[in-house]
Amino acid sequence: MNDPYQTLLKKVHETHDIEKAIQVLSWDKETNMPAAGNTARIQQMTTLRRLRHHIFTSDEMGELIEAAGAELNGVDYHSREASLIRYLRRAYADERKLPDDFVQRVSKVSGEAHPAWVQARANNDFAHFQPHLEQVIALVQEMADLYGYEDEKYDPLLDKFEHGMKTAEVHSIFQVLKEGLKPLLAAIAEQPDAVDNRILHQHFPVNKQQEFANYIATAVGYDFSRGHLGTVVHPFATSFSRDDARITTRWNPGFLNAALFGTLHEAGHAMYEQGTDPGLARTPLARGTSSGIHESQSRMIENIVGRSLGFWQAHFPRLQGLFPQQLGGATAVAFYRAVNKVQPSYIRVEADELTYNFHIILRFELEQAMLEGDLKVADLPTAWNDKMQALLGVTPPTNALGCLQDVHWTRPGFGYFPTYALGNLYAAQFYEAMTAQNPAIAEDMAQGDPASLVAWLRENIHQHGRKYTPAELVQRATGQPLTPHAFMRYATRKFGELYRL
Amino acid sequence: MNDPYQTLLKKVHETHDIEKAIQVLSWDKETNMPAAGNTARIQQMTTLRRLRHHIFTSDEMGELIEAAGAELNGVDYHSREASLIRYLRRAYADERKLPDDFVQRVSKVSGEAHPAWVQARANNDFAHFQPHLEQVIALVQEMADLYGYEDEKYDPLLDKFEHGMKTAEVHSIFQVLKEGLKPLLAAIAEQPDAVDNRILHQHFPVNKQQEFANYIATAVGYDFSRGHLGTVVHPFATSFSRDDARITTRWNPGFLNAALFGTLHEAGHAMYEQGTDPGLARTPLARGTSSGIHESQSRMIENIVGRSLGFWQAHFPRLQGLFPQQLGGATAVAFYRAVNKVQPSYIRVEADELTYNFHIILRFELEQAMLEGDLKVADLPTAWNDKMQALLGVTPPTNALGCLQDVHWTRPGFGYFPTYALGNLYAAQFYEAMTAQNPAIAEDMAQGDPASLVAWLRENIHQHGRKYTPAELVQRATGQPLTPHAFMRYATRKFGELYRL
Repeated sequence: MNDPYQTLLKKVHETHDIEKAIQVLSWDKETNMPAAGNTARIQQMTTLRRLRHHIFTSDEMGELIEAAGAELNGVDYHSREASLIRYLRRAYADERKLPDDFVQRVSKVSGEAHPAWVQARANNDFAHFQPHLEQVIALVQEMADLYGYEDEKYDPLLDKFEHGMKTAEVHSIFQVLKEGLKPLLAAIAEQPDAVDNRILHQHFPVNKQQEFANYIATAVGYDFSRGHLGTVVHPFATSFSRDDARITTRWNPGFLNAALFGTLHEAGHAMYEQGTDPGLARTPLARGTSSGIHESQSRMIENIVGRSLGFWQAHFPRLQGLFPQQLGGATAVAFYRAVNKVQPSYIRVEADELTYNFHIILRFELEQAMLEGDLKVADLPTAWNDKMQALLGVTPPTNALGCLQDVHWTRPGFGYFPTYALGNLYAAQFYEAMTAQNPAIAEDMAQGDPASLVAWLRENIHQHGRKYTPAELVQRATGQPLTPHAFMRYATRKFGELYRL
Repeated sequence: MNDPYQTLLKKVHETHDIEKAIQVLSWDKETNMPAAGNTARIQQMTTLRRLRHHIFTSDEMGELIEAAGAELNGVDYHSREASLIRYLRRAYADERKLPDDFVQRVSKVSGEAHPAWVQARANNDFAHFQPHLEQVIALVQEMADLYGYEDEKYDPLLDKFEHGMKTAEVHSIFQVLKEGLKPLLAAIAEQPDAVDNRILHQHFPVNKQQEFANYIATAVGYDFSRGHLGTVVHPFATSFSRDDARITTRWNPGFLNAALFGTLHEAGHAMYEQGTDPGLARTPLARGTSSGIHESQSRMIENIVGRSLGFWQAHFPRLQGLFPQQLGGATAVAFYRAVNKVQPSYIRVEADELTYNFHIILRFELEQAMLEGDLKVADLPTAWNDKMQALLGVTPPTNALGCLQDVHWTRPGFGYFPTYALGNLYAAQFYEAMTAQNPAIAEDMAQGDPASLVAWLRENIHQHGRKYTPAELVQRATGQPLTPHAFMRYATRKFGELYRL
């Protein structure tokens, strides 16, 4: 055990194992745990988080990182070893800024906020969640100060989800989106009946939906032999190793989209994890590099693959066979059009590809206002509704359909929301690049076969895990930095055709 | 933090939380994990086990136990505090004998042995499991030596599951059982057709079985609001807190007993955990005191409640309503008789109340022989079959139905098996005592209502958790030490009536 890198690796494996154990406890909490078990579960997760943080931020860990870094000086930048040292130096420096006690408080406050949020949403009772959200925001503010920042208070929070990205950059990207999408949406709004999606709002028995969800997830490349599909209220994907990357779905017997596109979305996330280089296993590099890049993978599978005409020409007959009464009279083209209907609505996770981005811009702006103290939590419901009206022209009739809809603010994870919209942009940019590099991908997609698309993702995105920063990865894969214009080109073409603009 | 007991408690909570996290990982492994996830899961569990062991056996922990013990000197023996110190002193001394490295090897060997066993059993391929079993037995031998012993090498292993019990005592109890059961079984064997159980071997759709399992578990007192029923290959109960105590079942569409009595059995285990004093939470006292006492609770619910005439007179109509085709023509009495048919068979978990004990005696004797080196692993299949023939008069046609049937030997948990039979004896002794103390319990049972029986268990067994040793508990609850005679009286009366002997 004289080799510093091997000694470091052993310690890294230890903290990684604890982190994955926490994720198993979290998965179980969402999928199987009776509500009564929450108190003990928070205690268990808090203990593990404190322990992991304590080990990871120890002086010993810092010395091991530096010793291994010195040993590896001059090693190829692209090697696993050099990449791990780069990542660890950054993560160590960051995490050292958070005291054990702070980590423990985060776990406790979040653990208590979650069931309060569940209840508040169920009863449309914002006041029940308000004190918890106030605690969460106090933690977020404290966290920003602990990390420190040069420009904006939001920067260090955003950095945790999209390393290297600045708040100002997101602002300017979202500005382009806003300006580009507004006229497109206005044109679409003039033809509200051009696309009919009533076909999706029928009774679809859940067991048949489950059968199709399994089929379709396999069809896009999700490997069930290294995964599992669970049922939850608020769907997510999680991975305990590249060989155990799970997805979750919720089932709505009255609306096909929730499970269908939810499953494809989470499958896209899990495929990223399943595709990481096995040589990165048991290290923090064995996962997607950022939330935005992760979201690009889910959006790629959900929208670019799952909402394409070729895909439904290939798979609609199977769906029709499962629901002959509901879909027997429909065509693949009609179904493709239905799942792409653009319509301002209240719920982010059910939004179409275009209006979705406004749901994100709204959250991004409100997060900053609350962080800076410009918006009081008590005023959130009104601010939310005003902004919905301004951006999308609709006002939620209840807070359950408004500011209580998302789980995210039960945790001090401000900076996460914008990565959802960044994911849309990355995905369009990746698709534009891959079809330029290999035109056969577009031809395969027209046949409903995403295999060559997935192969490109495996090669250019998945395998690298967290070896590269998002900026490095997008530059390597597409030859340029992140741009919103690829998405605007994709959206203008696709929805221009759909709505005959 | 000057109070030594409070400081100790904080440390105890920490190790307890880690232990419970390990159990969540284990539960998930059995219920949801894809097989491919096993390698990473073993690593995660091994890391947590090593960490927990390291913290629990630290010098600091020993000093805290002694400082708190000194502070509490003279405190009531029956208090939570004094009981916790007693338990910790013993557990600390024991666990200090196992080096970190040994604990790590146990976790690794067991983790690898489990999937090998699954495959060996599925393919009836003992040779595939043999090298793993050899490793397990080497660990068991090493463990006995690490713990040390005065009389028999098996003693320290047995002690971990049934603290205070000696191998010699089990021998003499099993001798009484053997001698008492042999003539009873011989008399029954003369009338093989007196009880007909063909009614149980029909097609019972699994979804209806699930519905009844939920109903019947609730009927005996299992609290689903603090629990969950999962599906597995090899059923077990586990608890992550008294408010999250879970059961598992396997479903056999061709035979009703597996799920029905399996569910009742595991419900009995989980009810013990659900019934512990909330004041013991997050300490090692918040669980059943020994494997034997635990098994007495599962056997009480499975057999003394679940295989009684009053119970089926109360609940058979419900079952009949779910399976009108299969059970429409039957009576509650016929069903009661069917589920109590005595018949030597190959599989322990499907054995009747009488022959079950011979399945245990067989394992108890073989474990000792392997431990002492008198039986080589390679010779286990033959030794198993010979002993089955000698004890039960049957020879398994395959090793899958013989020495490969149980999961237990994938872990170095020798000493566990005998506690299954001890559980039967404890249960009968508890039932005899409670009905003597409160005759209304027998009357309620005749009406199929186990509420007063469960109330007695809550009062005399459940609430105490691990405050008392098994010997203390049985003495307090029944006024005498463990005896096999209560079981023999119960068995002779019940099966004498059933078989009109």
